[in-house]
Amino acid sequence: MIRVRLDIAYDGRDFAGWARQRELRTVQGVLEQMIANLVGAEGEITCAGRTDAGVHARGQVAHVDVIGWPADLDTWRLNRALPEDVRVLAITVVPNEFDARFSALWRRYTYLVSDSPIGPAPLDRGQVLQWGKELNLDAMNSASRMLLGEHDFTAYCKMREGASAVRELIDLRSERVGSDVVITVTADAFCHSMVRSLIGALLPVGDGRKPVTWPFEMLTSGIRGATVMPPYPLVLEEVGYPPDDQLLDRQLQTKQHRVLSEPDA
Amino acid sequence: MIRVRLDIAYDGRDFAGWARQRELRTVQGVLEQMIANLVGAEGEITCAGRTDAGVHARGQVAHVDVIGWPADLDTWRLNRALPEDVRVLAITVVPNEFDARFSALWRRYTYLVSDSPIGPAPLDRGQVLQWGKELNLDAMNSASRMLLGEHDFTAYCKMREGASAVRELIDLRSERVGSDVVITVTADAFCHSMVRSLIGALLPVGDGRKPVTWPFEMLTSGIRGATVMPPYPLVLEEVGYPPDDQLLDRQLQTKQHRVLSEPDA
Repeated sequence: MIRVRLDIAYDGRDFAGWARQRELRTVQGVLEQMIANLVGAEGEITCAGRTDAGVHARGQVAHVDVIGWPADLDTWRLNRALPEDVRVLAITVVPNEFDARFSALWRRYTYLVSDSPIGPAPLDRGQVLQWGKELNLDAMNSASRMLLGEHDFTAYCKMREGASAVRELIDLRSERVGSDVVITVTADAFCHSMVRSLIGALLPVGDGRKPVTWPFEMLTSGIRGATVMPPYPLVLEEVGYPPDDQLLDRQLQTKQHRVLSEPDA
Repeated sequence: MIRVRLDIAYDGRDFAGWARQRELRTVQGVLEQMIANLVGAEGEITCAGRTDAGVHARGQVAHVDVIGWPADLDTWRLNRALPEDVRVLAITVVPNEFDARFSALWRRYTYLVSDSPIGPAPLDRGQVLQWGKELNLDAMNSASRMLLGEHDFTAYCKMREGASAVRELIDLRSERVGSDVVITVTADAFCHSMVRSLIGALLPVGDGRKPVTWPFEMLTSGIRGATVMPPYPLVLEEVGYPPDDQLLDRQLQTKQHRVLSEPDA
């Protein structure tokens, strides 16, 4: 068996998320079907970030194990077999120690918000959240800095029973780009709905309805209190991995860390 | 009567172009209806660039004459009355010598093309032309430079009978921005389908099917030979005007120039 890495972009609008679901159109489902047709392997595809319904990707990473990859199956042929709303940007044979999910060092997402009284630019409106009040980015960034580092993010997660919510938030910042506000979120990993809950905590700070300390107080309370913001302005931008000789260590470390921290996190 | 300038952006997808048409949804129709409802005036709106069906705008400019503009009718209230795919970015009371169409010095458009074998990025695909062969931008830019200046662009226009096709092409250049090719076209004015015909002349030069001299030879021949490319990658970006004290001169000059050059251009 060889392991193949796929770098993937998609428009999440017409997908019921990444994860395969019976009877629903999903990114995993579409890609696995394509692999089955072109490679003749019924391999399961594992990704770095299992995006929710409506969430987009410009830099999703996945891996799949196959007996062999046809020599003439390049990105051009592969994309011809795919619908226009999902593209495979690169195909790379990787060491077996590369695990798209467990070898990842970090995931970076962006979230687009317009606080203009005019609303989002017409051509971008499907990918920008309209926020009715002007946002104070200094306040948002002060609130963000208090959340950085390793914490139990239970207050920002839709938890699976018994799972750990300990994550390291590496970067969280808001900046104006053109007429929009871009919020960038980077963490070693995210639990379910964590990005959109963080955004939901920052925006009421930005418009002055909540104090700058509110997101941090929620974090320490462990009680969910932020709105999970809608998915359409969210894009998985990039996933970071260590050099090849550290892929296995990273995998073991990620798995161990999660197991260890599960009971008492 | 006072004259009001409106700066306008729209997503052209669901409009049958700018110009009002019975029974069809047009930008002019939607805006005139809004003005009639909010200002109580049945004024005709005049724009700088009468975009075709499917063409977008980030910087359309228009003017309308009204008896008075309600003091509380700002962009926020005005946009609340408009559908999401058209926005009024600014409302400015201007001198009566300001004519959105005839006072304009230049119009700037952009056209987006992807020559990647992978095709356009999924999130941008509705606004990018997919071109199957790699584009040589040096060749395209050499061909473009030969077209600059004042010429009779009959070969690039769907002509109205008896109208002049003399225009000054101020800028025409192709550059890579991210994974796309952006073609920028600026002229004092454009005749019908001129931008999309120029694009249709440059792309076969870029992929090597036509010589660099082909677009210029077509120009001098006066015979239409380029495909009119599709509208969805085309955006009216900006319109330039002179200072207020030159608005009237410019208007007269534009009108005179067109009349003079009509019979024998």
